[in-house]
Amino acid sequence: MPYIPLATHLPGITGLLEYRRDTAAPIRELTQFLLRGPNSLTEAERELIATIVSYGNECRFCTTAHATAADALMGNSAVTEQIKIDHWQSTLSEKMKALLEIARLVRISGKAVTDNAIELAKAAGASDLEIHDTVLIAALFCLYNRYVDGLATSFPDDPSYFGQLADRLVNHGYHRLPQGYDHLKK
Amino acid sequence: MPYIPLATHLPGITGLLEYRRDTAAPIRELTQFLLRGPNSLTEAERELIATIVSYGNECRFCTTAHATAADALMGNSAVTEQIKIDHWQSTLSEKMKALLEIARLVRISGKAVTDNAIELAKAAGASDLEIHDTVLIAALFCLYNRYVDGLATSFPDDPSYFGQLADRLVNHGYHRLPQGYDHLKK
Repeated sequence: MPYIPLATHLPGITGLLEYRRDTAAPIRELTQFLLRGPNSLTEAERELIATIVSYGNECRFCTTAHATAADALMGNSAVTEQIKIDHWQSTLSEKMKALLEIARLVRISGKAVTDNAIELAKAAGASDLEIHDTVLIAALFCLYNRYVDGLATSFPDDPSYFGQLADRLVNHGYHRLPQGYDHLKK
Repeated sequence: MPYIPLATHLPGITGLLEYRRDTAAPIRELTQFLLRGPNSLTEAERELIATIVSYGNECRFCTTAHATAADALMGNSAVTEQIKIDHWQSTLSEKMKALLEIARLVRISGKAVTDNAIELAKAAGASDLEIHDTVLIAALFCLYNRYVDGLATSFPDDPSYFGQLADRLVNHGYHRLPQGYDHLKK
């Protein structure tokens, strides 16, 4: 049971974003820009950053949501399964593996990020902006994971839920859906 | 040295917010609303949540900035000094001590928040919205602390810096300052 009264048909983050729309608006805007805005990192790569952080924080709702979105964008689930175990062994580019390492360290603590991890990413071709965005996306999911689990939000019972959510995230992004799209809200 | 090129006269978060104004705008808006918007928690109480989280995350810039702002709002530094050691021993209300405990747990992990911690806050008179906002403020500072330290931002040399920053945060909030206020920017 969530610690505060949330709509029972809206699990995880979705109920929180409807509970307080004042705070939801800038959270949605930041997420939409970082995960779907113009970027040299693909949408799938940015969803992988969200996934590795959420998995490390053991946030089941966020991990499943963003892994499913990344899988939909990439057409397979092999990469998300692999990065949960060891991203260095994945088939991703050297740059992306180095950025996932930075994200993994940011999750532990800002202070855990080392000169070495940054140098490795730069040597693999990561730009300053890509490093910036990786750190900020990782930090944002440290916010989300704590928000979702700190208020004990519910996990959906329906096994088809995350496929529908991924379809929404891939095709409509992180904006609040307009009226008339209520069937997509969950 | 920061890991990415930031303006050298803008330490801590201030250089990051100028580095990428696209992402800074919703971060500022969320912070302004949560820390300065209409709320049954005072501005000082909300700065204390920011302080206890930043201190727990060992983020020196954020801890000093928000403790100094809280001190300015309260007219003393006894409370911020005490909550760094043990908030239960502070002179704050029972409700505020229970909310700081929730913030302390959120910092560790969303999953660290217990039914007992929530029940204690509710028994001390905390509303659902106060519990929500406490969790979200704590989660937001988990973002900030990782952003500031994950990119190795600088700490100001000038001992008067944080007094000036606190004056700005108390009197102007978290908005981006308009042109002509450049002397307040640091």
